[in-house]
Amino acid sequence: MIYKVDIKTISRVDFKDITRRVNEIVAKSGVINGICYIYVPHTTAGVMINEHADPDVVRDIEAQLDAMVPQHSGYRHREGNSPAHIKATLIGDSETLFVEEGRLVLGTWQGIFFAEFDGPRSRHIFIKITSD
Amino acid sequence: MIYKVDIKTISRVDFKDITRRVNEIVAKSGVINGICYIYVPHTTAGVMINEHADPDVVRDIEAQLDAMVPQHSGYRHREGNSPAHIKATLIGDSETLFVEEGRLVLGTWQGIFFAEFDGPRSRHIFIKITSD
Amino acid sequence: MIYKVDIKTISRVDFKDITRRVNEIVAKSGVINGICYIYVPHTTAGVMINEHADPDVVRDIEAQLDAMVPQHSGYRHREGNSPAHIKATLIGDSETLFVEEGRLVLGTWQGIFFAEFDGPRSRHIFIKITSD
Repeated sequence: MIYKVDIKTISRVDFKDITRRVNEIVAKSGVINGICYIYVPHTTAGVMINEHADPDVVRDIEAQLDAMVPQHSGYRHREGNSPAHIKATLIGDSETLFVEEGRLVLGTWQGIFFAEFDGPRSRHIFIKITSD
Repeated sequence: MIYKVDIKTISRVDFKDITRRVNEIVAKSGVINGICYIYVPHTTAGVMINEHADPDVVRDIEAQLDAMVPQHSGYRHREGNSPAHIKATLIGDSETLFVEEGRLVLGTWQGIFFAEFDGPRSRHIFIKITSD
Repeated sequence: MIYKVDIKTISRVDFKDITRRVNEIVAKSGVINGICYIYVPHTTAGVMINEHADPDVVRDIEAQLDAMVPQHSGYRHREGNSPAHIKATLIGDSETLFVEEGRLVLGTWQGIFFAEFDGPRSRHIFIKITSD
């Protein structure tokens, strides 16, 4: 079974903490020990895991990606969103997490973020959970 | 079972769309619902998922990686292909996709690309497909 | 079952070859054919696969990441380790490998590296191995 989770982003670059929502899907699946796969079916957004205690960490990640991938740089793709495609490729479109005792195994500071690079948009992710 | 797919690249940097070939392996496996794992056993090539409708998107990704990782920069590795190793690490060497009704679950614009950074060469990837 | 492997890093940036240790866990698991998942529960470290024959390759990767993500750059996060968070996100926090005949399937030149970006520290990784 593949679960679909809808996500609304509200600005061009928008990292949304989806940790709680993914854990809700894990609970709904009834899997106690297994693996949770997250997949982003978009080409200008991705998914990453990093600190969610201090929101400044995510802002620094967003700003450094902006510095590394300039908004204008003689790109050929006519839609003007090449930087979003490039950032999505650097961040990656999937995550694989462990499930133990019905919960995601995450480090103390870790949260899961949907990484929007070409918003605002209505997006979605797919989640699959397998049991050991 | 591990499937091996041979890939010929024709220039130093060469992103090859392998979506159809991976879907052929999925069909051959007979798996209806499950997971498809792609693994690149090389250190100067990777695999990524991004837009395959407009080929300019991939060209912009190639060009921006060239801009971020200069071809000459006082690298220590004597073989002269350090930029290829670095780009391969940024892109990543594996992808995990869902299979539903005997087909890969991909977004509307998504294609799978083998990313050559030190070609031209004869390369290969490994694919494994598990059933739910 | 989730295996925990302790890792000691000895400098700020420290890529440690963990290939042998992961293969020891694969042997201990008794799995002959399957999949090996590696997960890093930290936000300033990651895991990557690249050449482990010539240690200069890893040094070039470390140096280029330093060049791409400056140590000081008006970061907002007060702990001073934003570059480590950013590099961890670029490298990624998980790897998925195949197991065949009781061993990891790796390319000729490939090794698995724990990538420390905010050391020295006591770290750990989680490993899970499923059988086909």
